[in-house]
Amino acid sequence: MSQVLGVAVLGAGHMGADHIRRLDRVVSGARVVAVADPDADRAREAVAGRAGVAVRTEAAAALDVPGVGAVLIASPGEAHEEALLAAFARGLPVLCEKPMVPDSAGALRIVEAEARLGRRLTQIGFMRRHDTEYRRLKSVLDSGKLGRPLMLHCVHRNVSSPPGFTSAMLVNSSVSHEIDAARWLLGHEPAAVTVLRPRSSAGAPEGLLDPQFVLLETERGVLVDVEVFVNSGFGYQVRCEAVCEAGSARIGDDHAMVVTAAGGAREEVPQDYLVRFADAYDREVRAWVDATRRGLVTGASAWDGYAAAAVAEAGVRALESGARTAVSLAPRPGLYAGTAEAE
Amino acid sequence: MSQVLGVAVLGAGHMGADHIRRLDRVVSGARVVAVADPDADRAREAVAGRAGVAVRTEAAAALDVPGVGAVLIASPGEAHEEALLAAFARGLPVLCEKPMVPDSAGALRIVEAEARLGRRLTQIGFMRRHDTEYRRLKSVLDSGKLGRPLMLHCVHRNVSSPPGFTSAMLVNSSVSHEIDAARWLLGHEPAAVTVLRPRSSAGAPEGLLDPQFVLLETERGVLVDVEVFVNSGFGYQVRCEAVCEAGSARIGDDHAMVVTAAGGAREEVPQDYLVRFADAYDREVRAWVDATRRGLVTGASAWDGYAAAAVAEAGVRALESGARTAVSLAPRPGLYAGTAEAE
Amino acid sequence: MSQVLGVAVLGAGHMGADHIRRLDRVVSGARVVAVADPDADRAREAVAGRAGVAVRTEAAAALDVPGVGAVLIASPGEAHEEALLAAFARGLPVLCEKPMVPDSAGALRIVEAEARLGRRLTQIGFMRRHDTEYRRLKSVLDSGKLGRPLMLHCVHRNVSSPPGFTSAMLVNSSVSHEIDAARWLLGHEPAAVTVLRPRSSAGAPEGLLDPQFVLLETERGVLVDVEVFVNSGFGYQVRCEAVCEAGSARIGDDHAMVVTAAGGAREEVPQDYLVRFADAYDREVRAWVDATRRGLVTGASAWDGYAAAAVAEAGVRALESGARTAVSLAPRPGLYAGTAEAE
Amino acid sequence: MSQVLGVAVLGAGHMGADHIRRLDRVVSGARVVAVADPDADRAREAVAGRAGVAVRTEAAAALDVPGVGAVLIASPGEAHEEALLAAFARGLPVLCEKPMVPDSAGALRIVEAEARLGRRLTQIGFMRRHDTEYRRLKSVLDSGKLGRPLMLHCVHRNVSSPPGFTSAMLVNSSVSHEIDAARWLLGHEPAAVTVLRPRSSAGAPEGLLDPQFVLLETERGVLVDVEVFVNSGFGYQVRCEAVCEAGSARIGDDHAMVVTAAGGAREEVPQDYLVRFADAYDREVRAWVDATRRGLVTGASAWDGYAAAAVAEAGVRALESGARTAVSLAPRPGLYAGTAEAE
Repeated sequence: MSQVLGVAVLGAGHMGADHIRRLDRVVSGARVVAVADPDADRAREAVAGRAGVAVRTEAAAALDVPGVGAVLIASPGEAHEEALLAAFARGLPVLCEKPMVPDSAGALRIVEAEARLGRRLTQIGFMRRHDTEYRRLKSVLDSGKLGRPLMLHCVHRNVSSPPGFTSAMLVNSSVSHEIDAARWLLGHEPAAVTVLRPRSSAGAPEGLLDPQFVLLETERGVLVDVEVFVNSGFGYQVRCEAVCEAGSARIGDDHAMVVTAAGGAREEVPQDYLVRFADAYDREVRAWVDATRRGLVTGASAWDGYAAAAVAEAGVRALESGARTAVSLAPRPGLYAGTAEAE
Repeated sequence: MSQVLGVAVLGAGHMGADHIRRLDRVVSGARVVAVADPDADRAREAVAGRAGVAVRTEAAAALDVPGVGAVLIASPGEAHEEALLAAFARGLPVLCEKPMVPDSAGALRIVEAEARLGRRLTQIGFMRRHDTEYRRLKSVLDSGKLGRPLMLHCVHRNVSSPPGFTSAMLVNSSVSHEIDAARWLLGHEPAAVTVLRPRSSAGAPEGLLDPQFVLLETERGVLVDVEVFVNSGFGYQVRCEAVCEAGSARIGDDHAMVVTAAGGAREEVPQDYLVRFADAYDREVRAWVDATRRGLVTGASAWDGYAAAAVAEAGVRALESGARTAVSLAPRPGLYAGTAEAE
Repeated sequence: MSQVLGVAVLGAGHMGADHIRRLDRVVSGARVVAVADPDADRAREAVAGRAGVAVRTEAAAALDVPGVGAVLIASPGEAHEEALLAAFARGLPVLCEKPMVPDSAGALRIVEAEARLGRRLTQIGFMRRHDTEYRRLKSVLDSGKLGRPLMLHCVHRNVSSPPGFTSAMLVNSSVSHEIDAARWLLGHEPAAVTVLRPRSSAGAPEGLLDPQFVLLETERGVLVDVEVFVNSGFGYQVRCEAVCEAGSARIGDDHAMVVTAAGGAREEVPQDYLVRFADAYDREVRAWVDATRRGLVTGASAWDGYAAAAVAEAGVRALESGARTAVSLAPRPGLYAGTAEAE
Repeated sequence: MSQVLGVAVLGAGHMGADHIRRLDRVVSGARVVAVADPDADRAREAVAGRAGVAVRTEAAAALDVPGVGAVLIASPGEAHEEALLAAFARGLPVLCEKPMVPDSAGALRIVEAEARLGRRLTQIGFMRRHDTEYRRLKSVLDSGKLGRPLMLHCVHRNVSSPPGFTSAMLVNSSVSHEIDAARWLLGHEPAAVTVLRPRSSAGAPEGLLDPQFVLLETERGVLVDVEVFVNSGFGYQVRCEAVCEAGSARIGDDHAMVVTAAGGAREEVPQDYLVRFADAYDREVRAWVDATRRGLVTGASAWDGYAAAAVAEAGVRALESGARTAVSLAPRPGLYAGTAEAE
């Protein structure tokens, strides 16, 4: 293994600060050498007590700090396209938080830019691909011992939605995780999406369509259904059952401790995705650092980021129209052949 | 409690013979006094060793045997309409196996005939209403402590389908149980149905669309989804999760014994609905005998039998057309006011 | 199957009244023809609304009522010996609630009396032998597929103990169920017993040693440990794990419904043995009625009643002495050969 | 956080090589600067491809390599005492794999030597203290919401024992983990130990007493029972249930994925402690590196290492004698006040 990887972190908000801590404290082989945030105070606070970290207000300036060998993009989605292109211009490997780029047109520009480069630099932060349970599920599906998958039943519940969360965001923010997980687990693309609207919960903010029920039909006829319910009130719960020709496999009912006390037996449900997927984030960044130090790019690709954006856009149209909506993807550049099955 | 109830059992096939055994051996307060089956040998075999049971080849003749105070209809569905009308003509209480009448037009004639009588005689054999798990689920929903239900996620899997099972029968035979369970749990009616067709399992007979994914939308906006998979290969598995405003409740993952041996921890999955619902059948017949001896008619009504038939018919049309199909129910006679919540 | 079985019920208290209801309403093939209780009002109340039931204050008088073909003993344990001998004198089959006779000397007199008769008349009401989970566990052990059993880990918890419950009663009342279950599951006899005293719960009444930890060593070297905790505060919980040479099998973690709401996923724990073992009681009485009508005596024998009493007595001595205490059983009469494996 | 910690790893066998990989690839903030193993080839192989790692055949020589700031002892237990004293002589912080020192007399010499130093340098590698499930269990117990603990029921099963495994090793190697876990969870010391011998499994090597059932009684009256079964045949299974005054909490039935296929629902059981406790090892070493870089010593202390050795020795005597055996601990030096509750 070669020398320690110098990383520029773009964005010093909640997620960026968490990644700075992770690179510094948890993951071996990397150190933060630059941080960029329009709010310089926030950036300085995120690296407080660490010597030798350059703070910049512009992403491009952070990439030019000496010793930067890779980029972790944790800024808001609107800033990603410019940051990715800046990294491409410098030949820097990137770990980019989701969404890669919020709209599919912009995402396609990234795909095309990287395809012109002729080599992959981008890994997208779909952390579920690094979660132990999801990896076991994929392993069982890939083994073929349950036959071909026919359906995926998915559940995605949050305690409550943050202020400003819109009905469209249930699809293009929350369900985008299931879109990527389904593509990754199945190894092929969605072809159509339908969004059904059960009556809304009294626990949801006025006007928010919550829960929703999203149906993806893939190009090979697999049906993926997703309950998304962002004001469920009780916890962060992510489940997936793959129904196959010779059996089913289900994740998401993990119980680490059962407490029996007056009234019943009880298991805790995590309240937050940072709790549920804490280890997945660690593994993701570790895998990225390890691969980057070896000169490799693995994990979810820019194509995966584009496909998730395109399917989510079709989903939002389906939510608005109430109709089954075809998913239309651009031709896949040869650079990304087979990367749905990456890892 | 009054005297022992004399029962005429119509149909001496698999289900009829099982009910004869149940009335004779399991359930207190009743005895079989007449059996009718076109195949007299089969009828005689079903009552072998029992004294004083009249055997007839015609249903009406069995109803006229002295001592008959009630009728249990376990003949093929096509024979039900005539048998029910014969019972009505004699004022005899009936427990009628599902389907009440296979087509909704015939079912509606039964509803109308009973409404003209002005009193209920009919209980339909939807045994899930007598299952301990389903009753607990209904009890939690009725308690209101989880808020209003928003969605029901249902799974209905069999090991394999019998010869001659058609794609339509996944809807009008298998899913009819979920149709009734959803109506009973929710206490109101379905308004539309859609049937999605995932790719079919290699384990299904040539030409059978299996699995299917059925979506019911109720008149109050609850969404009910049902995976029906009759050649799952591994067992008889019935699950239902009610997602409510303040929590969810799930049944169907019952485990009575966990065996850990080489390779993992294992729970048995029943292979057959007679195993899974054995106690429910006992409780159903016991409740019917008890109520009948008291002069009461409880449980699922002829209206429930009609509604299940009408929704299933819409489902078959939805399967054929691929489109969302409205459910249209006849006006509900006053005799059946509130009986969706019966019991 | 022959005619309806006329039953004399001795004792009209809580358990007796429950059995009267069961014979009348739940179980086919029997009817109550006589009830005896020193408190005639209580006896009359227990059969209120039932015609043709003779009420007596003396057990022997009830046995002499015309039509009595069998006896169900649900009186206090002190009355059992006399009642059993009266039944033997009349050649009447008996279902006797546990304990058969409270002390092992009296229990042995019953064994000897029945042995002199030369045929079995007595079945003891160890209802766990009729519980679905216990029967599955026995079936797995008997199949031999897990190899020989080496240990049984048992848990027996109640919400709270009734007034007057003594430290000795944890052994000779509560643990007597595990003593019988272990004998039945293993098919051979205990050889020694030790009782350990963890610190007592603050939730237990002053002076009560609760919980206790009882160790049985069998004549073939199987170790059975039992946590008995009668003031656990949270529910009635009965578990048993059989650890065998090639795997383990565990019952008692049954969950029929999982409710997820604020704070976690939750399963109900029954609060009472009548809830947990409701079906077992029904099955027990049904099996007894069925066998009796066929002229058979099955189930737990007088020997099983004696052995449980003898082991429990050794357990109480072990509790008092703090030492490992040998179990000494009388020679087993030939009438009971093999009946530990009965059923 | 200060500079990167230079670590000398003593022992390049299975465990040592795994720790070298962990320090190099997984854990942030440390790097291996020296490795000692009597077999220099094995040491060289363990650091193959890493520049700047000094290889030595003597532990003391490795400690003297420039840049060494801490020591990780993964050599055989017999070599630990000398290595620990060498580290003490140089003032180097140590992470020492269990057993700290195999016999309690030697362990006490370490305690006394460290007490003379007047400051803690030693952390013992009891990795369960870093396992997520165990930490949740401790957190629940420490919260007091279940009342005081009264009993711990523990299970410790392996697939099969390695060659040369003796009956005493079930106690002093396998159960030593439960001894430490019980001390840590309860926060006080064992006072007596008894070892029961169920009949041995046909799957155990000739002459090995396997399974065994170990009972610890603590100085405050808590009873800890441990099934240890090192030839269970099916997997590596570690369970612990804490029974408290107001409820119980159980860990070790974790299921990450349920697979349903022909014959039943199935969960995988890990086959190996390195699988089960993989994350715990990572967390342990990470916590040690983090604390050491801050100049702190946390985690299990030399006193914990001594106490585990002393209790295990009493356990081996109890196994041999068949009798309840008192545990006698030396007076606890002030340096270790309260460290049973450390972390």
